Amino acid sequence: MKYGIYAPYWTHEWTSDYEYFIPKVKKLGFDVLEISCAALVEKYVTDAQLLELKKVADDNGIVLTAGYGPTKEQNLCSEDPAIVKKAMDFFQALLPKLQLMDIKILGGGLYSYWPLDMTMKMDREGDLDRAVKNMRILSKTAEECDVTLGMEVLNRYEGYMLNTCGQALEFIDAVGSTHVKVMLDTFHMNIEEDNIPEAIRRAGEKLGHLHLGEQNRQVPGKGSLPWAEIGQALRDIDYQGAAVMEPFVMKGGTIGEEIRVWRDIIPNPTEEKLDRDAAGSVAFLRHVFER
Amino acid sequence: MKYGIYAPYWTHEWTSDYEYFIPKVKKLGFDVLEISCAALVEKYVTDAQLLELKKVADDNGIVLTAGYGPTKEQNLCSEDPAIVKKAMDFFQALLPKLQLMDIKILGGGLYSYWPLDMTMKMDREGDLDRAVKNMRILSKTAEECDVTLGMEVLNRYEGYMLNTCGQALEFIDAVGSTHVKVMLDTFHMNIEEDNIPEAIRRAGEKLGHLHLGEQNRQVPGKGSLPWAEIGQALRDIDYQGAAVMEPFVMKGGTIGEEIRVWRDIIPNPTEEKLDRDAAGSVAFLRHVFER
Amino acid sequence: MKYGIYAPYWTHEWTSDYEYFIPKVKKLGFDVLEISCAALVEKYVTDAQLLELKKVADDNGIVLTAGYGPTKEQNLCSEDPAIVKKAMDFFQALLPKLQLMDIKILGGGLYSYWPLDMTMKMDREGDLDRAVKNMRILSKTAEECDVTLGMEVLNRYEGYMLNTCGQALEFIDAVGSTHVKVMLDTFHMNIEEDNIPEAIRRAGEKLGHLHLGEQNRQVPGKGSLPWAEIGQALRDIDYQGAAVMEPFVMKGGTIGEEIRVWRDIIPNPTEEKLDRDAAGSVAFLRHVFER
Amino acid sequence: MKYGIYAPYWTHEWTSDYEYFIPKVKKLGFDVLEISCAALVEKYVTDAQLLELKKVADDNGIVLTAGYGPTKEQNLCSEDPAIVKKAMDFFQALLPKLQLMDIKILGGGLYSYWPLDMTMKMDREGDLDRAVKNMRILSKTAEECDVTLGMEVLNRYEGYMLNTCGQALEFIDAVGSTHVKVMLDTFHMNIEEDNIPEAIRRAGEKLGHLHLGEQNRQVPGKGSLPWAEIGQALRDIDYQGAAVMEPFVMKGGTIGEEIRVWRDIIPNPTEEKLDRDAAGSVAFLRHVFER
Repeated sequence: MKYGIYAPYWTHEWTSDYEYFIPKVKKLGFDVLEISCAALVEKYVTDAQLLELKKVADDNGIVLTAGYGPTKEQNLCSEDPAIVKKAMDFFQALLPKLQLMDIKILGGGLYSYWPLDMTMKMDREGDLDRAVKNMRILSKTAEECDVTLGMEVLNRYEGYMLNTCGQALEFIDAVGSTHVKVMLDTFHMNIEEDNIPEAIRRAGEKLGHLHLGEQNRQVPGKGSLPWAEIGQALRDIDYQGAAVMEPFVMKGGTIGEEIRVWRDIIPNPTEEKLDRDAAGSVAFLRHVFER
Repeated sequence: MKYGIYAPYWTHEWTSDYEYFIPKVKKLGFDVLEISCAALVEKYVTDAQLLELKKVADDNGIVLTAGYGPTKEQNLCSEDPAIVKKAMDFFQALLPKLQLMDIKILGGGLYSYWPLDMTMKMDREGDLDRAVKNMRILSKTAEECDVTLGMEVLNRYEGYMLNTCGQALEFIDAVGSTHVKVMLDTFHMNIEEDNIPEAIRRAGEKLGHLHLGEQNRQVPGKGSLPWAEIGQALRDIDYQGAAVMEPFVMKGGTIGEEIRVWRDIIPNPTEEKLDRDAAGSVAFLRHVFER
Repeated sequence: MKYGIYAPYWTHEWTSDYEYFIPKVKKLGFDVLEISCAALVEKYVTDAQLLELKKVADDNGIVLTAGYGPTKEQNLCSEDPAIVKKAMDFFQALLPKLQLMDIKILGGGLYSYWPLDMTMKMDREGDLDRAVKNMRILSKTAEECDVTLGMEVLNRYEGYMLNTCGQALEFIDAVGSTHVKVMLDTFHMNIEEDNIPEAIRRAGEKLGHLHLGEQNRQVPGKGSLPWAEIGQALRDIDYQGAAVMEPFVMKGGTIGEEIRVWRDIIPNPTEEKLDRDAAGSVAFLRHVFER
Repeated sequence: MKYGIYAPYWTHEWTSDYEYFIPKVKKLGFDVLEISCAALVEKYVTDAQLLELKKVADDNGIVLTAGYGPTKEQNLCSEDPAIVKKAMDFFQALLPKLQLMDIKILGGGLYSYWPLDMTMKMDREGDLDRAVKNMRILSKTAEECDVTLGMEVLNRYEGYMLNTCGQALEFIDAVGSTHVKVMLDTFHMNIEEDNIPEAIRRAGEKLGHLHLGEQNRQVPGKGSLPWAEIGQALRDIDYQGAAVMEPFVMKGGTIGEEIRVWRDIIPNPTEEKLDRDAAGSVAFLRHVFER
């Protein structure tokens, strides 16, 4: 297993300077940095910039993975063909960029949009049908670029389509691609699954990506999730992918608002404190997960 | 401690025939039935109807408690005085009805509105100030009617004002009434608190009402919450109030939508199965919580 | 799964009047009563007595299972052939009695003796070899009588041969009989296994018998063992055998001494309190274990 | 809180070269090394040797604490005055040595003997009376030497006098010395207490020393004990003493026999693996326990 962290932990906006975070996370003890694809649209745009970022990662021995939440206007399951087209265009432009950077994983609620607008119409069955159909199309590009798409299972407040591992397994079976897999996140699982370790075991070899976070999105080890049991389940399925912590502990900014963090989850979240917690957490995970 | 259940467990709409549920919950092993105040506006309107309902409860040896989520148009913390007035009028009409029925507890996000509309402006500090000021006014009526108002601590997706027990304690201290207390719900705590039992101990004698539910809102005992620890914490603070389970396991209807239940949480939720789970759960709680 | 309880919960000596306990445990909600074989030597000796006991069980719809801890003088793994012979004679006389009563399970540290005398020589490897060899012989009788022998995994203070499920699986594989299976006990597992549910899953279909108890041998639900996870593991392996609680909560008598209970584990353990805890615990287990 | 480890983790006998372990544990991340007093009788005998050992500790910034299990011949609660005298002489000679080395804590089953011989007479009440009386006498020397005596609470297989925190609190209240306090050990608590964190909170400021270990005596983090809850309890009581892990994972030698470790608890326990686990565990504890 490789241990990573999602860069937005340290920031209030989704886009940031990953050249700054790559050596930092290396120093803190991580193998992987997950970046938000928002930056690949807004900041790292040219191939030269992408390759420069890849070089920084390579030089630091850091593997990159990518996360994304499509906007309402680029929704693969929309009834509106124009919105589906926007989504398809976006992903089909994005995947070759990830390939260029040797990024093998793109995870998130890629089959829909985010954050969820509860006032919008939710035609769950129709949306699922369209999502399967369009994901099948997109999966061809994913296969060509050798990027695995992680279908993130989200809690009921962030998604209405895939709330459990079981639903995600049905979904990827319907899509039927080697490059469309289940993505689990302990924070979401803690709200939806009957039993977190059992859901991990059920995913088995179809688990393509994994996010880790405590019940209130602190770094693993600072809350009450059953980490020993989670580690046992990951060993049971011989999970060899990336385990990326995705903590959010600061209020404010676009992230605070979209993640619904209305308070600082930890007192006085200075960069020094965030660094210490991240380093402590990855040491914690290696101790608990590895035998 | 008295053990109860919230009637909407069995229904798809907030209003229902409580005369039907009172003998049922007695038979299933409960001491308390919690009703939604929606019914006291739509269905049980006259004093005669209220007293008839009270009589059914008395005859069955069932204590009633009440829950409510104010609508967007009756929001005590609104910047719009007309909306605040609507809220105040509503509660000031409601409390004497509760008094008439000998209902001593009214719980919910009474300081704001529900379900939360994420697209609305959230002036958290201003809203808290207005909520304290207006709750102080309302508390006078609550004291006169001897109805305790439970300020429910909600998870980040359902509320932006009081997400932790600590915040609620500050809030009720600012209000300063004997009849405004903290209300905790294990389902929400499981998403927000660092440590559920510690939050219960911190609330101590200021805990006025308690809702119980598993992480995915099944009945207690069907999931993974630390019930032994929760029971220990309740014994530590010598909690003598009502412990009301508030399970939601069926998709569909207004409840399914507002509670964000997009699937049946348990397979085949027939009334017979719901009854069996409820009876099993209250036996479970008595066994785990009582010494 | 069938739910049972071990009769010595209520007594200070191993032998008691099972005619008294059979209707009691039925009334408290159990399917199974486990009896100590000590009584089959001291009290229920004649075939008529055995058949009378069986009839009481049948009339009450109660299934019987049996437990035993061989004495130091009837030790199947002893270096002394006379002691081995005593053990073999004892079991070969006992098994037809169990068959007569339609008892299908005999569980305990049958491969050795109990309680463990730490001052005796412990030749673990030699003892294991002899135990395998002699258990193979005994298994023929077990097969003929259709009684499954449960090789109980004991904690380090009660046994030095089989402390983990993994060791027991090796042992029964070496014996190689359809009627020699693993027996697990959550009280012992809580001291030895890295992970209780994982051990249950590893046992799988080789789990022949199961004892349940909290960390300090109270009835399930009164302590901190991970019952939800244990239930999940039992469903994972589709365990259809008996789950027999084996609580010991009173000091005094032979039982108090041999079980090392130097204090009343619960305050004031009257029969009425013991009955209430037992009834509460079996309701607790049915609620947590069954879906 | 200061984090320590008991040296016998790495050895098969109780006495070892502490000059070797002091720099090692420093490098692995610890603040404290706990030594067995056996060595202060057998190996570090002269004042010069003791002071040399103290110097090595000081030079490495390591605090020393001490543990001891009195033999059957030096039992403070014996009915035989000669055995009591031997115990008193031993401790009264030992405490000034600890003072010389600036060791402030001596923990263990000091009120009795160890390992427990189950075949000996156990007059629990009489033994407790004698233990209180003699501990009162010994406490004078402890006060003079400013060494706190930790009355270790042991599981039922290792002790018959103090099995719970509640019993230990009664015991130290009866002794009534500033220098006689409760000592808890999570391994033992896991077998005896209804609820580990609650027992820690009950001990409160009377907790003088703390041992940590998983259910099967692996290093903290490798098993299933509720470390997040334990950390919360330690913060609740503002514990400022030493938290010393006391893992035992290897079979063999006097330690394997007396600790009843009949198998290697972890596969292939090389020194390199033991070091890695120890370093991982202290990082784990700092992450989980500190806020």
